[in-house]
Amino acid sequence: LSKLWGGRFSQDGGQRAEEFTSSLSFDKRLSRQDIQGSEAHARMLARQGIISEEECALILGGLRQCLKEIERGEFPFRQEFEDIHLNIEQRLTELIGPAGRKLHTGRSRNDQVALDMHLYIRSECQEVLLRLRSLQKALVDRAAEHLGVIMPGFTHFQHAQPVLFSHYLMAYFWMFQRDAERIAFCLHQVDRLPLGAAALAGTTYPLDPHSVAGELGFTRLYENSIDAVSDRDYLLEFLFSAAVMGMHMSRLAEELIIGSSREFSFYEMDDAFATGSSIMPQKKNPDVCELVRGKTGRLIGNLVSLLVVLKGLPLAYNSDMQEDKEAVFDSVDTVKACLSMLAGVISTMKVNPGRMRASMYRDFCLATELADYLAQKGLPFRDAHHVAGRVVAYAMKKGMDIWELTLSELQSFSEIISEDVYDYLDYEVAVQRRTTPGGTCRENVEQQIAKALALLEA
Amino acid sequence: LSKLWGGRFSQDGGQRAEEFTSSLSFDKRLSRQDIQGSEAHARMLARQGIISEEECALILGGLRQCLKEIERGEFPFRQEFEDIHLNIEQRLTELIGPAGRKLHTGRSRNDQVALDMHLYIRSECQEVLLRLRSLQKALVDRAAEHLGVIMPGFTHFQHAQPVLFSHYLMAYFWMFQRDAERIAFCLHQVDRLPLGAAALAGTTYPLDPHSVAGELGFTRLYENSIDAVSDRDYLLEFLFSAAVMGMHMSRLAEELIIGSSREFSFYEMDDAFATGSSIMPQKKNPDVCELVRGKTGRLIGNLVSLLVVLKGLPLAYNSDMQEDKEAVFDSVDTVKACLSMLAGVISTMKVNPGRMRASMYRDFCLATELADYLAQKGLPFRDAHHVAGRVVAYAMKKGMDIWELTLSELQSFSEIISEDVYDYLDYEVAVQRRTTPGGTCRENVEQQIAKALALLEA
Amino acid sequence: LSKLWGGRFSQDGGQRAEEFTSSLSFDKRLSRQDIQGSEAHARMLARQGIISEEECALILGGLRQCLKEIERGEFPFRQEFEDIHLNIEQRLTELIGPAGRKLHTGRSRNDQVALDMHLYIRSECQEVLLRLRSLQKALVDRAAEHLGVIMPGFTHFQHAQPVLFSHYLMAYFWMFQRDAERIAFCLHQVDRLPLGAAALAGTTYPLDPHSVAGELGFTRLYENSIDAVSDRDYLLEFLFSAAVMGMHMSRLAEELIIGSSREFSFYEMDDAFATGSSIMPQKKNPDVCELVRGKTGRLIGNLVSLLVVLKGLPLAYNSDMQEDKEAVFDSVDTVKACLSMLAGVISTMKVNPGRMRASMYRDFCLATELADYLAQKGLPFRDAHHVAGRVVAYAMKKGMDIWELTLSELQSFSEIISEDVYDYLDYEVAVQRRTTPGGTCRENVEQQIAKALALLEA
Amino acid sequence: LSKLWGGRFSQDGGQRAEEFTSSLSFDKRLSRQDIQGSEAHARMLARQGIISEEECALILGGLRQCLKEIERGEFPFRQEFEDIHLNIEQRLTELIGPAGRKLHTGRSRNDQVALDMHLYIRSECQEVLLRLRSLQKALVDRAAEHLGVIMPGFTHFQHAQPVLFSHYLMAYFWMFQRDAERIAFCLHQVDRLPLGAAALAGTTYPLDPHSVAGELGFTRLYENSIDAVSDRDYLLEFLFSAAVMGMHMSRLAEELIIGSSREFSFYEMDDAFATGSSIMPQKKNPDVCELVRGKTGRLIGNLVSLLVVLKGLPLAYNSDMQEDKEAVFDSVDTVKACLSMLAGVISTMKVNPGRMRASMYRDFCLATELADYLAQKGLPFRDAHHVAGRVVAYAMKKGMDIWELTLSELQSFSEIISEDVYDYLDYEVAVQRRTTPGGTCRENVEQQIAKALALLEA
Repeated sequence: LSKLWGGRFSQDGGQRAEEFTSSLSFDKRLSRQDIQGSEAHARMLARQGIISEEECALILGGLRQCLKEIERGEFPFRQEFEDIHLNIEQRLTELIGPAGRKLHTGRSRNDQVALDMHLYIRSECQEVLLRLRSLQKALVDRAAEHLGVIMPGFTHFQHAQPVLFSHYLMAYFWMFQRDAERIAFCLHQVDRLPLGAAALAGTTYPLDPHSVAGELGFTRLYENSIDAVSDRDYLLEFLFSAAVMGMHMSRLAEELIIGSSREFSFYEMDDAFATGSSIMPQKKNPDVCELVRGKTGRLIGNLVSLLVVLKGLPLAYNSDMQEDKEAVFDSVDTVKACLSMLAGVISTMKVNPGRMRASMYRDFCLATELADYLAQKGLPFRDAHHVAGRVVAYAMKKGMDIWELTLSELQSFSEIISEDVYDYLDYEVAVQRRTTPGGTCRENVEQQIAKALALLEA
Repeated sequence: LSKLWGGRFSQDGGQRAEEFTSSLSFDKRLSRQDIQGSEAHARMLARQGIISEEECALILGGLRQCLKEIERGEFPFRQEFEDIHLNIEQRLTELIGPAGRKLHTGRSRNDQVALDMHLYIRSECQEVLLRLRSLQKALVDRAAEHLGVIMPGFTHFQHAQPVLFSHYLMAYFWMFQRDAERIAFCLHQVDRLPLGAAALAGTTYPLDPHSVAGELGFTRLYENSIDAVSDRDYLLEFLFSAAVMGMHMSRLAEELIIGSSREFSFYEMDDAFATGSSIMPQKKNPDVCELVRGKTGRLIGNLVSLLVVLKGLPLAYNSDMQEDKEAVFDSVDTVKACLSMLAGVISTMKVNPGRMRASMYRDFCLATELADYLAQKGLPFRDAHHVAGRVVAYAMKKGMDIWELTLSELQSFSEIISEDVYDYLDYEVAVQRRTTPGGTCRENVEQQIAKALALLEA
Repeated sequence: LSKLWGGRFSQDGGQRAEEFTSSLSFDKRLSRQDIQGSEAHARMLARQGIISEEECALILGGLRQCLKEIERGEFPFRQEFEDIHLNIEQRLTELIGPAGRKLHTGRSRNDQVALDMHLYIRSECQEVLLRLRSLQKALVDRAAEHLGVIMPGFTHFQHAQPVLFSHYLMAYFWMFQRDAERIAFCLHQVDRLPLGAAALAGTTYPLDPHSVAGELGFTRLYENSIDAVSDRDYLLEFLFSAAVMGMHMSRLAEELIIGSSREFSFYEMDDAFATGSSIMPQKKNPDVCELVRGKTGRLIGNLVSLLVVLKGLPLAYNSDMQEDKEAVFDSVDTVKACLSMLAGVISTMKVNPGRMRASMYRDFCLATELADYLAQKGLPFRDAHHVAGRVVAYAMKKGMDIWELTLSELQSFSEIISEDVYDYLDYEVAVQRRTTPGGTCRENVEQQIAKALALLEA
Repeated sequence: LSKLWGGRFSQDGGQRAEEFTSSLSFDKRLSRQDIQGSEAHARMLARQGIISEEECALILGGLRQCLKEIERGEFPFRQEFEDIHLNIEQRLTELIGPAGRKLHTGRSRNDQVALDMHLYIRSECQEVLLRLRSLQKALVDRAAEHLGVIMPGFTHFQHAQPVLFSHYLMAYFWMFQRDAERIAFCLHQVDRLPLGAAALAGTTYPLDPHSVAGELGFTRLYENSIDAVSDRDYLLEFLFSAAVMGMHMSRLAEELIIGSSREFSFYEMDDAFATGSSIMPQKKNPDVCELVRGKTGRLIGNLVSLLVVLKGLPLAYNSDMQEDKEAVFDSVDTVKACLSMLAGVISTMKVNPGRMRASMYRDFCLATELADYLAQKGLPFRDAHHVAGRVVAYAMKKGMDIWELTLSELQSFSEIISEDVYDYLDYEVAVQRRTTPGGTCRENVEQQIAKALALLEA
């Protein structure tokens, strides 16, 4: 069997090298994009008079036939044709004869594969956005549902101050909102048509890339043909966005896992998102969350992989760049699955407001209220902080919460304390007093929710 | 010496733990930002009536004094005060008395450090943009200077087709242009004021973060206080941008290093950007380019570092996040230095058009012209490609270039070849015929240069 | 000022390029190693008759003087001499005259810096081993101290089965034991003298590297001079060992942080290893553990950095390799500090056996015992597991532990259950029955401790 | 269909979550290891009287049947049984009835999967060693074949000093030798039987893990059951070894790619390891080398992935750890393929000694010889270096090599130069004078080759 580019070679490549260099096993996934790009290219070739209308019709028919065969699982994929591009071209020629060999006019695999990846990542970004939206929606819905619930807010994984559970959930909403902005930026970066660059220098055929761009929905061309075939920034952009999204999801997953532990019991996973043990009958493992957390590893790994591939690579195309695909495919699959799974987890998990409330008893997370009280009575904040600290130490030793101390006990630490201090030492009051923009008081959280819903609808 | 937060603690921290947890040795670098943020905070506290005008004046005076001491190298940095924030507050109080202790009202170190980092990265992004511009300018200038020079364009590091040297240089211009867009996106992400989030829940003081934002040049607030203190996305964004920029620079550096090798001799580094050997008297090493290429390592490493730090981290602030600083500082320094160095290298290196031209003799990089010629005469491209391949094999065996073959030799491969074939087998013609947008013909490259200059002026 | 290698250069390097390429600011740290290596080299040169005994004496005296100046902070470091090697040689020549310029005979900076790094990493590996030992000792000591204490063992962060707290601690001991083996392997890899390779090809002087190796404590030479100056595997080995150690420490730190949360309260950090909050008076943050966990980021990042630097680098020395130092220095410092800190944390933290015990009440971590009981009575294990699962579901609904159910309740799930089932439903019994090698029963844990102590003494 | 662990669950898992958590699609690859481990476990259960001899015979027969079905592609893999372990157990029970359900006695999936991975990586390490050996053999063979050939040795990618081409090739041999040592260390780390740890705490059955270890070829047990199921160090060890191997291969690949460029023409790839272009008929691309170089990316990425997965993970098993497999499988496949490909490339490529020699003309790589000559005549080395540098500058300006200058021209730089200087200015002499151990003179290189062959035979 003779290679399409074999004219100059004295012998066929060894079987193993052929397998090693073939990308068919994974770039198969680009078949739809490859056909979509070829259709637009063929139509433009005809418009420009480079091929005849009849040839164009034949090509378009043949490509449709290829697509059908692929969709039905009947396409004869053959590794000896290296990649999806040559496989489709070869099949096309079998189906329609010599006209098939004209499709590649004015094009090289270098700009063709670049186009396929642009089309692929653009459509996957849109899918990722949809799933991000679902996860964000799940968060807003739970936030709206549990609006009155107070939980301990943590810093350094120690109880810090009481916050609304809804406020806590919305923190994740805004992280994922930034992820959506990042994907939008990625879509901006991917919005450049590489076709017309050919091998690297442009082509001698009177192509009209503007019309191809229009047909395929691109608003810009690459300014430079060498750059067009060498650029993989838009893939790095996606891999990075996926890694950050994964990192965000890992934080949420971690909190859900710990929050589902017996000691916390803030949450209970729905059975659909938990698994059991082959040996311990009582186990209910937050399997899905653990996997979401773990999959951050491959998302970061994939980003590193492509950065390493590109490091120090001379222009223009080098085969190293074939290594861009599997990393990207894997991050696409991973991030899409994790987003959906986490949305499911959030929507279905049981929330336990009683445990959240109980966990704050005698945790001294109202100590800041006491310090604020003292500061408001005129003590410089640093001194107020110090007094409150000594009160905490005393209450801790007595095994009581601050508000369980008597007024005279409190006054022994500072004479400016009076009866009204007890009004401050209350979880609801503590939450409601935090009225700064973005603060945890109910009104502000309601505002967050309203803004969030507006964003989701947009 | 007693810690500012020591009220509840029974003993002072061990000396070594203090050293381990202290961030002063590196967060010192934030002193200007810390003072700038504190000034805005103090003025707002006064406007809101939380502190008096007199106190505010005292604080502003004290902060100015601190800044002066820092600039003169006279500021008494003390490790026992953990970080730059406490050091400045402590010094302030020494300078102006109790009013100093009121500065921290309505603020926590959690939102304070977040603000400092926002201010820092914003100003460094602007500096990076300037240096990017210089590097881009250096590329455009050399492109404009050498406009007629033809070099072999490479794919797979083999000669592919002739291109204008200016076209090749401009490919890098557009890469760096994307880097500039990425930094602009980073500036968009950093444009949110975190102040007002306090520890994590907002504060009970009637702050006016909008006015602080205005004063400090932010157009947005964080929507959620927990997110405000937990977010490090804007730093990841910078680290990623720096890593991609580094990757781009490593590609250029690699090409300059190889291009400066004896075998290539396309370039010669200016003495100012090369070094010698301690043992080999003849050596002139492209040291600066090698370092630029090597420093990609730390840029990728720094990105990995912070992604790992954040993976699985519960909300809100955790001390792990203190680890964001050194990675960011290092990437800032590295990327700034590399950009400047590379701009210097590009501006000063000698270019050797003669070697570029000579290297194409008998390299068969005009074979595509022959194939195009045949295709234009009516052969399907795939067949044309095959014929051209056989011609190359023949010429190679004879030790000649294609255009050194006689017409009858050429015709023995295809009868449709006629005398006019020689018009195509010419480097200038090959370049000039590539007229697709972004292609390498002179007019298109001139257009690129014009667009580039317009972008740099904007 | 003229460079040592400046003979062929027409102008001095630009100031900024000089700063960019200089490694002095960080390779200063190698001054002791550089002098140690130079002493051995000088003595060998004299033994071989390449320099005279008088010259050798002068050199050794001068080097001692340099060392003294360095130790006293009086050494005149000058950036214009690029690196520590040239700085010392220059100073030596100032001190002793022309003999100083003979020290470099038969040597290049390429093999000199390789030697310095070998000496450096070898000595730091030994220090790391010592600190690993201290951490392991701290774990064994706490394990021995708390031998009777039972805690819930976790899988999927859910209570799984009761284990001895000492058993749990010893799991970490064995991880760190593997780290020690890895460092030992690193010491094996570093045990090759690179001196004699000169620039890359060996030298023409009749050196005797075997005697230098003997003097410096190396048992092997490099077999190939090009490899000797290009090899950085031993540094990767260290960076990897440090990253794995960091990963191990991050797991322990994570568990200590969560275990110190209010919800768990298994541990309380000693005040010396915790910090407070600038705003919340009650806070006691496990700061040191958080930093240990966070520092895993830079340890992984440093490993990535050097791998990236070396990727695709042609032989032999390239300036990219100068980038090996800061990553290694940082990982050395980081891992040493973390090991010591964690040893301190483990030794001093309060352990709360009561909370561990209480947390198991009604957690059903004895369900495996019930399944085992049923299996022992003849039920296939998979069926036993299923019955036990249904018992758990029933008890959970009733809000009781399994052993709180009556015999007839239990028998309603399986008739083979009889009175002796209660003997199995006991934490101590559950622990004591796990007698497989490496299992959690007290005798086996005592054996582990004995083995561990023996290893530490070796 | 009811899950094996489903007793406690009120509803079946959602379809998508099942797909998400299932590892069957990739852990299928462990089927042989799983069966091998189960056979040894069953035999031990029988020896210990835990199951009967008849049951054991049934189980062994059933497992053999499973293996047959797998090998024939007839095994009914079912995703609803989560992983390869449950699939085989389920099929076994279908084949042999209730005895099948006894196989899992005293075992958990946690120690079972650990055993499978130990067996897998052990056998793959052996395969990797074989392929490493082939690559090393290819290098030694080419080194032996071309023993007299001289090439320019490079530092900073500039000609440095002449070396034997064989010496250069052997530098890679020794790198790969270190890789072999690293794989051997990995085999040492993997040599611990995890079986007996059960879920995490050991088991209550009177197992005899020592005999299982003996049967399966392990010489050690894990000392601690929690560690046994939590340890993934041996996989990290492999991933790291693969990454370093990949880095080494990337260096060689880079040099072959550059060396195959028209400008160098030191090498020409065999047609079997090169490919052509779809557009440029003359192209012969070193595709295989490019892919080898590019695949370093995924090898480093995979290492990062697993390090990230394990960071901060509490003991003992968590589902995150399921993410260990694909990274390891990919690195195994990648490194095996790259080693074989590179061995093929090395064995078959054409070497062009003429080009190597010609490239040294007028490159001044003999300048060190001149400096050495002057030093031998009594000039301190630093001064000799300076004089030689000035001679180079002069010769360069005249467009001549050093040995093309007249004696009087040379003497104008130093009077101590006499006629015998020309004996030194010779490539063969330069090589032969480098007689330090590991140096490039022919005798030393022959010695290297002899040692290498001895190592390969061992």
